[in-house]
Amino acid sequence: MEKIIQNGDSILIVFDEKRRWIVQVKEGEKFHTNKGFINFDDVIGKPYGCQIQGSKQLDFLIFAPTPADLLFKTFRQTQIIYPKDAGMIIVLTGIGPGSQVVEAGAGSGGLTSMLAYFVRPDGKIYSYEMREEFLKKAQKNITRVGLDKFVEFRNKNILDGIEEKNMDSIILDLPNPWEVVPLTRSALKSGGFFASFSPQISQVQNTVSALREYNFGDIRTYELLMRSWEITKMKSRPETQMIGHTGFLTFARKKSDIETRE
Amino acid sequence: MEKIIQNGDSILIVFDEKRRWIVQVKEGEKFHTNKGFINFDDVIGKPYGCQIQGSKQLDFLIFAPTPADLLFKTFRQTQIIYPKDAGMIIVLTGIGPGSQVVEAGAGSGGLTSMLAYFVRPDGKIYSYEMREEFLKKAQKNITRVGLDKFVEFRNKNILDGIEEKNMDSIILDLPNPWEVVPLTRSALKSGGFFASFSPQISQVQNTVSALREYNFGDIRTYELLMRSWEITKMKSRPETQMIGHTGFLTFARKKSDIETRE
Amino acid sequence: MEKIIQNGDSILIVFDEKRRWIVQVKEGEKFHTNKGFINFDDVIGKPYGCQIQGSKQLDFLIFAPTPADLLFKTFRQTQIIYPKDAGMIIVLTGIGPGSQVVEAGAGSGGLTSMLAYFVRPDGKIYSYEMREEFLKKAQKNITRVGLDKFVEFRNKNILDGIEEKNMDSIILDLPNPWEVVPLTRSALKSGGFFASFSPQISQVQNTVSALREYNFGDIRTYELLMRSWEITKMKSRPETQMIGHTGFLTFARKKSDIETRE
Amino acid sequence: MEKIIQNGDSILIVFDEKRRWIVQVKEGEKFHTNKGFINFDDVIGKPYGCQIQGSKQLDFLIFAPTPADLLFKTFRQTQIIYPKDAGMIIVLTGIGPGSQVVEAGAGSGGLTSMLAYFVRPDGKIYSYEMREEFLKKAQKNITRVGLDKFVEFRNKNILDGIEEKNMDSIILDLPNPWEVVPLTRSALKSGGFFASFSPQISQVQNTVSALREYNFGDIRTYELLMRSWEITKMKSRPETQMIGHTGFLTFARKKSDIETRE
Repeated sequence: MEKIIQNGDSILIVFDEKRRWIVQVKEGEKFHTNKGFINFDDVIGKPYGCQIQGSKQLDFLIFAPTPADLLFKTFRQTQIIYPKDAGMIIVLTGIGPGSQVVEAGAGSGGLTSMLAYFVRPDGKIYSYEMREEFLKKAQKNITRVGLDKFVEFRNKNILDGIEEKNMDSIILDLPNPWEVVPLTRSALKSGGFFASFSPQISQVQNTVSALREYNFGDIRTYELLMRSWEITKMKSRPETQMIGHTGFLTFARKKSDIETRE
Repeated sequence: MEKIIQNGDSILIVFDEKRRWIVQVKEGEKFHTNKGFINFDDVIGKPYGCQIQGSKQLDFLIFAPTPADLLFKTFRQTQIIYPKDAGMIIVLTGIGPGSQVVEAGAGSGGLTSMLAYFVRPDGKIYSYEMREEFLKKAQKNITRVGLDKFVEFRNKNILDGIEEKNMDSIILDLPNPWEVVPLTRSALKSGGFFASFSPQISQVQNTVSALREYNFGDIRTYELLMRSWEITKMKSRPETQMIGHTGFLTFARKKSDIETRE
Repeated sequence: MEKIIQNGDSILIVFDEKRRWIVQVKEGEKFHTNKGFINFDDVIGKPYGCQIQGSKQLDFLIFAPTPADLLFKTFRQTQIIYPKDAGMIIVLTGIGPGSQVVEAGAGSGGLTSMLAYFVRPDGKIYSYEMREEFLKKAQKNITRVGLDKFVEFRNKNILDGIEEKNMDSIILDLPNPWEVVPLTRSALKSGGFFASFSPQISQVQNTVSALREYNFGDIRTYELLMRSWEITKMKSRPETQMIGHTGFLTFARKKSDIETRE
Repeated sequence: MEKIIQNGDSILIVFDEKRRWIVQVKEGEKFHTNKGFINFDDVIGKPYGCQIQGSKQLDFLIFAPTPADLLFKTFRQTQIIYPKDAGMIIVLTGIGPGSQVVEAGAGSGGLTSMLAYFVRPDGKIYSYEMREEFLKKAQKNITRVGLDKFVEFRNKNILDGIEEKNMDSIILDLPNPWEVVPLTRSALKSGGFFASFSPQISQVQNTVSALREYNFGDIRTYELLMRSWEITKMKSRPETQMIGHTGFLTFARKKSDIETRE
């Protein structure tokens, strides 16, 4: 039996790889794109996976949004974490069902909502964001995709202190992650994960130094490059344009306090 | 409060980025590495995140294994899915809590156990593996890490038919994924994900052709390159050696049957 | 003593990495850019390496063009060979002073003029281009940079036969290089180089098959990725945008005829 | 007419992409490899491009060495410049027939001999190497391949002063290239090229700072990644192992002294 699209659902509209939108279905309204508009009334009652013709006789596919779509499309303004990087964070830290995670900063909530998706049904994301306008946007975005009960927001600078204890992971997307490192020891459980995303190599150097100083182990820094391929039966080639850099990912695990010899 | 290591636990022993092992703690026994051996009795009762000295006065860290570790270290023999690729699969398909997933082939269970980790507590992995010796190894490995109740194995060739219906995703790591494509339509829910990992570009070409023929949409092929960096306070550089290729990832979503016009 | 810019010289005008032009100095005239115009009269009599202020009070640097600039900037229309790829061709085939080289197709002469630069003073490029409008453009471009006496153009399809014998190298930038392979044996000296640039992997497959069939040895295929970095004293990072693919380079060397056993 | 191999020639022996050697042909002697030995007497009198069977019934190809081979194979001990990087240097700086070039340090002469190859017949490489044992090795290597008359060695630390004036290019492969920058202004002609190869990002940062301070323009930093592909008629894929990092290339051009405002 196919799941049917209802009024109020958050849906993913796909024109092609680049043109895709997450929107909320609103009875009687239209959604405008530069490839023509769609009537939401054409979508309501159809199964997910359906194909809809827009006003310019072009086809759009309608799907349920995935974590990667949340990352990219709900919250375009401040996005810097790409699916390749988010996937690496998820798999290396094991943020999954039940995980307790501190995140800073929330930005407009892209990574927050993705993390929330994976910690269901009994995990929690504690998300720090000091800029009130971003916090509001993040809250609205996460509510819209129905993940708000897995997120607790903190409208404060994480440098003023981390309230949580015994966290499984702390994920930082901040300009100065190394300043946060000293605060993470009291928040993380022993063996818990520190992960940080930074575009500049000097940020990475400072962060790794702080991690070494504050008794973290298994410290590793990676960068991921993603190439899209155009594939046809006979002709195949990588796409010409590529994102050459998003940021460096640094991972570390908290050593037990009994190992700390400062 | 720190979690304490107990007899029978599956632990991750870390010497450095390359030398890391998942083993089961066995009272009174030793674990031998080329950096000296560890007495399990030194580990039992210590907190996770502790540092243990081996027989050669070298330090080892003890952690709980993460999904990336499961992928790499439990099941070395047939491993081909790397964390970068697995993370992309997880994030693009949204395999998470509650997901119903068909996987083929299980190999020695690396990806199987990782998928099982993410679909807890109420999802399920249906894992096809026709080679009995691999099936047994996969079952043993997954039981050892306590994820067996989230996996149902099928000792058969997936080309002989997929029993499941209404699946969220189908993940293939097979030499001939394109032959499986026709069978996936009846197994996937509308909007459900097809994902395939293939080292050869011709495998990708055949698979993408089959996906187009069998009415899949949002078809995309990626490759990911991962570089490790050596980071110190003053000197930083990418590592000289790198894995230049693991495989290509192809993703697609099933269009609704009402769209099928064959 | 500094070399002085004269009327009629071909100069390189550099605004930044992306905005750079090769133009001929013309007394009394202006050169217009989207960053303002330059009076050539301000340039004449200045040393190479000088800095000129344009009409918008922005600075431009004036240099002698290099091979990489010839590749990129004289002949924008059909350019597909990038400096990274051209450099690899030069270094792997050893096209240098005195080399005798067949090239097809000339396009608008970018690679032709670069090859001509390196074979001075006594080598020669035999350049095939069947499309007359491109041939004329290539001739004009190469004359403008003063390299015309090192190039002999052939206004014909190379598939109709290669006139030259005992060539050091044959360089192909054509849609169907594999069709040319059989013709290259009679044109190349023993041990001579075949090099081909192709965007599609199927082109590479066909070419490599033909090279094996026609008794070439040391067959190799590479791709090169180039990343630009933004460097400052404290902050450094790769640039976000990158060319993810230009083409694959295939190299081979002709085995001696006495080795041919067909 | 095919060129014939003679006693005393420097030849390239190719087993496969990785196993290749430059050796001097010596009548009556053998060359030993881990794939069996070759009798030089089997090679003498054969044409270049010939195929020779070794003692283990395995085939070897015999070619004339190219610049890329010189780089890699004559002088294995201290090699760090790869063909991809050397090609970029050649093409961006235009080191070609007649160029006057300062190089430091010579190491065992790999890059020196490659540069010498391209500046024939009337250019010159002035190569600084303070370590006498390397200098001797470099001299021997370059003499062996017949390029010694295009190289003048300086057995001194380049930091003690550059004797040359009006150079076209200065190429540095040193741990501390930024210290050399102030000395290069008096040695380079106006518009001349500075190029430096450094593995560490901090070396690049220091060098770029010095170049800005000492009035260089068109400053650019690149890194190149090279992937080898395995190509067959039906199956093609990048090779698993790859060199992930050799070094960063920094290029700059000297602005005219009349622009210097220190």
